[in-house]
Amino acid sequence: MKKCVIVPDSFKGTVSSSEICHIISEEALKIYPDIETVSIPVADGGEGSVDCFLEALDGSPVTCTAKGPLFENITAKYGLVDGGKTAIIEMAACAGLPLVLGKENPKETTTYGVGQLILDAAKKGVNRIVIGLGGSATNDGGCGAAAAIGVKFYDKDENSFIPCGGTLKDIARISTENRNPALDKIDFVTMCDIDNPMYGENGAAYVFAPQKGADKDDVKALDNGLKHLASIIKRDLGKDVAQISGGGAAGGMGVGMVAFFNSQLKMGIDTVLDMVDFENLIKDADLILTGEGKIDSQSMGGKVVIGVSRRAKPFNIPVVAIVGDIGDGAEAAYNEGVAAIFSTNRIAADFSVIKGSAKDDLRKTVYNLFHFLNATKF
Amino acid sequence: MKKCVIVPDSFKGTVSSSEICHIISEEALKIYPDIETVSIPVADGGEGSVDCFLEALDGSPVTCTAKGPLFENITAKYGLVDGGKTAIIEMAACAGLPLVLGKENPKETTTYGVGQLILDAAKKGVNRIVIGLGGSATNDGGCGAAAAIGVKFYDKDENSFIPCGGTLKDIARISTENRNPALDKIDFVTMCDIDNPMYGENGAAYVFAPQKGADKDDVKALDNGLKHLASIIKRDLGKDVAQISGGGAAGGMGVGMVAFFNSQLKMGIDTVLDMVDFENLIKDADLILTGEGKIDSQSMGGKVVIGVSRRAKPFNIPVVAIVGDIGDGAEAAYNEGVAAIFSTNRIAADFSVIKGSAKDDLRKTVYNLFHFLNATKF
Repeated sequence: MKKCVIVPDSFKGTVSSSEICHIISEEALKIYPDIETVSIPVADGGEGSVDCFLEALDGSPVTCTAKGPLFENITAKYGLVDGGKTAIIEMAACAGLPLVLGKENPKETTTYGVGQLILDAAKKGVNRIVIGLGGSATNDGGCGAAAAIGVKFYDKDENSFIPCGGTLKDIARISTENRNPALDKIDFVTMCDIDNPMYGENGAAYVFAPQKGADKDDVKALDNGLKHLASIIKRDLGKDVAQISGGGAAGGMGVGMVAFFNSQLKMGIDTVLDMVDFENLIKDADLILTGEGKIDSQSMGGKVVIGVSRRAKPFNIPVVAIVGDIGDGAEAAYNEGVAAIFSTNRIAADFSVIKGSAKDDLRKTVYNLFHFLNATKF
Repeated sequence: MKKCVIVPDSFKGTVSSSEICHIISEEALKIYPDIETVSIPVADGGEGSVDCFLEALDGSPVTCTAKGPLFENITAKYGLVDGGKTAIIEMAACAGLPLVLGKENPKETTTYGVGQLILDAAKKGVNRIVIGLGGSATNDGGCGAAAAIGVKFYDKDENSFIPCGGTLKDIARISTENRNPALDKIDFVTMCDIDNPMYGENGAAYVFAPQKGADKDDVKALDNGLKHLASIIKRDLGKDVAQISGGGAAGGMGVGMVAFFNSQLKMGIDTVLDMVDFENLIKDADLILTGEGKIDSQSMGGKVVIGVSRRAKPFNIPVVAIVGDIGDGAEAAYNEGVAAIFSTNRIAADFSVIKGSAKDDLRKTVYNLFHFLNATKF
């Protein structure tokens, strides 16, 4: 009996990673009726990540009331896996851009609710919390989330306040004295696939704030606010966060997770593979199928296909990537352990033309692969 | 040591079948340095067919003087293979559309030169002549070629003449009495991949004459001429050619080959596979690579991929098709023995965009295939 481990990223805009897993599994069974398939839909930390983890790890969802990006009360969801020992929280649940549609304003939005979800999970007795960054409406450097767990931010008049993007500049002092002690025993992992620093021309404000509703002046002010926050963190918490790779993720939430939650920042794919105990899953596998919307030279930094193949390489199991587009530089993947890359593009046509048949094209591409494997006596 | 037989059609407008063979062979050697490759560039009967056969069968070219489409003298080439026992003649050499560029006129063009090439080959002692149809500038039903070998066409005043498309209607009587007897011992095979009949709405004139310069009135006249020719052939030669599938190929040359040369009409791919002794070539092969510009439901009639896979099927050797586009209905190929179909489309883009990288895309697609085979322990 063959065993196939399926661990794809989503094809952004056309097929979710969960759907990809189902399609691959169905097509594999058409050719190998007794094949064992293990599906690990990969989350990137953004919207939908909790659902991916719940599916991959057979976990359970939890809902609770928390603050939304504009301090309104909302009902938010997170996930418990690993027998309730690990919580999966996507910041988009409380601080996501879709929650402020039409009211985007990174100067006034907060990550406060994310801290509340963390507290809720802590109360449930988890010993690990995985935070997914991505799709945020905020630029508060994670100060909102920090405030929710008891970190105090004071202005120059020693008044405590909850800083937002626009008021980071008013922070005169930070105290972690009242930080909830229950969190001390919890291991934090933050999923972060970008390497932008906290501030500067490649920082959170300049690169990402415009898509959150900031104009040019806003961007400058938000960037100054983050720079100011970094200096206070350095002075009061003794942590030099200015140059952390990925610190600028999600409006500086990357830095906030490091500074206020003592979290590590980790590649999304490595987080997922660790969570599912990937090496144990694949050790008796005959084939590993992975994929992403487009593979090219940028993928080599550690997107899903390369992340999977690097970890599978020592096991000498064929890793096959099913992708949308194969761009320039994709050949480097062979050196990382990828056996083959197959595109779902079947006819020469623009994306606008083929978008509608993406799922069907994927299905046919996968069927062809298994048909081929069978014909070549896999 | 692995053996791979490479037998592709051309990708029309981007890569010739000979180039495809070279690219596949080169990429195979990168992964399997001691692989034996056998290249059979497939000709479709049209322009370039002689060169394909010469390459596949290590033959030699012959040039001679013959009449062009407008009765002008030209130097034309044909091929000798099989130790000089078989001649390969493409009608395009003497009656091809490129020879009348700017002077297209299917009423006045002739296949006379094709008959001259046939006579030249007969003098050299061949016992088989393969005629490739395709790319013709003519609509003379093969009467020109017939006249060259001694078939006599008389008008109502018993004057002998060489009928062209516009004068077919003037044929009152046909005599094969003076047909060159040297041809009696020669086996004729005509490559013909279309199934259009001689005349009528799906016939040579209506379907193909417009691209040879005929206007609406011309088409009607040409069609009537072919219909008239069929009736005279029936009466004088006792052959009912009106409904022959493929009779309408190359301006009715399909019928002419049957009526005046006693030729069989045969699918191009089957002709090629017979000529190279395909079954003998593949009996110890590990892999067969074929391909065509686009595979879809129309390919199932017997284009190259299906033609190859049907003949390879009894040998249980994987047949892999490398194609440009994979269109609707291509899945039927699996039932014909195709193990897998891989498209060279790597990014979602219109043909006008990717045309320029066709060879490189093909090369990368083939490398990926062999890399995959190697990783899955082919």
